[in-house]
Amino acid sequence: MYELWYWPGIPGRGELPRLALEAGKIPYRDMAREAGEDGYKALSKNMGQARDDPPFAPPYLITEEGLVIGQAANILLYLGEEYGLAPLDSAGRLWINQCQLTIADMVSEAHDTHHPVAIGAYYEDQQPEAKRRAEDFRAHRIPKYLGWFERILAERGDWLSGEAWSYADLSLFHLVEGLTFAFPRRMATIFGDLPKVMKLHGAVAALPELQDYLTSDRRLPFSDGIFRHYPELDGP
Amino acid sequence: MYELWYWPGIPGRGELPRLALEAGKIPYRDMAREAGEDGYKALSKNMGQARDDPPFAPPYLITEEGLVIGQAANILLYLGEEYGLAPLDSAGRLWINQCQLTIADMVSEAHDTHHPVAIGAYYEDQQPEAKRRAEDFRAHRIPKYLGWFERILAERGDWLSGEAWSYADLSLFHLVEGLTFAFPRRMATIFGDLPKVMKLHGAVAALPELQDYLTSDRRLPFSDGIFRHYPELDGP
Repeated sequence: MYELWYWPGIPGRGELPRLALEAGKIPYRDMAREAGEDGYKALSKNMGQARDDPPFAPPYLITEEGLVIGQAANILLYLGEEYGLAPLDSAGRLWINQCQLTIADMVSEAHDTHHPVAIGAYYEDQQPEAKRRAEDFRAHRIPKYLGWFERILAERGDWLSGEAWSYADLSLFHLVEGLTFAFPRRMATIFGDLPKVMKLHGAVAALPELQDYLTSDRRLPFSDGIFRHYPELDGP
Repeated sequence: MYELWYWPGIPGRGELPRLALEAGKIPYRDMAREAGEDGYKALSKNMGQARDDPPFAPPYLITEEGLVIGQAANILLYLGEEYGLAPLDSAGRLWINQCQLTIADMVSEAHDTHHPVAIGAYYEDQQPEAKRRAEDFRAHRIPKYLGWFERILAERGDWLSGEAWSYADLSLFHLVEGLTFAFPRRMATIFGDLPKVMKLHGAVAALPELQDYLTSDRRLPFSDGIFRHYPELDGP
C-alpha cells in the first residue's frame, strides 16, 4: 500500500495526489493524519530521515518498494502512468503534465496572495503587501490562467485531454474550489466567462468514482492553508 | 529540427531547455532570436495561433511532428527520455523530474524577489515590497533550497542522479549562475557551506559538450529577466 505524506489539517497541495488516489481507487495510507495529534511530529520525523532521495517538501508518496516520490506533479505523473489516470501516449502524457504544471504555478500564486513577501511569517505581518498582490492576482492572473483552461476546453471538449478525465482535471476542480473559497466575490464575476471550466468543475464533482471521498471526513475543508479567505483580499 | 520558442533578449526559463539541447547536441532553431528585431512579434504571433495544445507561456518546444510541449520541466522530461539526458528507469526519471520541479520553484521565487506584488508592473513600483521579499529569500529560501541539493549530493556523489550528468544538473548550474549574478554578496557568504553544489557548478561549466555553447553568442548574459542584480536587494 502507498504511504502519502502531507501536513495534516489542510487540503493543501496534498489534495492533488489525494484526489487521484481516491478517484483511481488506489489503496493508500494518509500517514500524518493517521498519526492524529502527533501528525506534524510524525511527518517531520519522516522528512528528516537519512535518505539519498529526500523530498524537499510534502506532499510525497512512498511506494511499497520504498521509492520516495516528491512534488505533487511528479507524484501525479507516476500515478497517471501506473494506473492510466492520464493518456498513456507520449503526446497525451506530456500534455496533461503541462496542464498540471500550469495548475501548480497558479496554486503557488494563489498562496502568495496572502504571503507575498515572507513565506515563514504571519499574514498579519504582510497585510498591505498581500492586498496589492491579491489585487493583481484577481485582475490579471485569475483571468489569464482560467482563460487558458477555457480556451483549451473550447477546442478539446469536456476534459483537458479531450477524451476522458485525467488527474489534471481533478486538480483543476480543486483549484476552482480553492479559488472560490478564497475569492468568492471575484469568482462570482468571472464564472460567466468560464462556462467550460465550470462545466468541468461540475463534472468532476459528480464523478461516481469520487462520491465516496467527497462526502467522507477524509476530505478536509479549506481553512488556513494555501487557499484562505480574507475578505479584504477579495473583490469583484 | 526542433523549434524552441522563448522571449529573445534574456536567458530566462528558456535557458533551461536550451542548455539541454546544447549539451545533448540536439539540432534546434531558436525561433524568436532568429527573427532578430521582430522576435517579440514573431513569438506573440506564434503563441496566439489557434491550437488545441496552446502553451500557457514560453518556453515551448515544437517537434517536427508538430507536437507543442510547454513548461520548461516538461520539455526537459521529454528531451531526457528521448535523448537519454536523464536516467531512463522509472525511479531515476522521477527523481530527476523532482529535482527539476524543485529548481523551477526556486527560479520562480528568485523572480518574485523583484516582483513580489504585481508581475505585470515595474520593479520601481514595488521596491519596498521587493526589499522585504529579497531579505526573506536571502535569509531563508536560499539556504533551504541549496542546502537540499547539498544534502543530496553528499549522499549521491557528483551529480544529482549519482552517476552521470542529467538535464537537472545543467539547470542547477544555471540556477547557481543566476543567483550569483543577482545576489553576489549573499552567495559569497554561503558558497563555503555548499562545497558539493559548487563542485557540480564547476563540473557543468567544464563539460566538453557545453564548451562550444558557453563561449558562443547564443548564450545571452543576465540582464533584466528572471535573475536581476539590484544592489539594494542583495546583502550578506
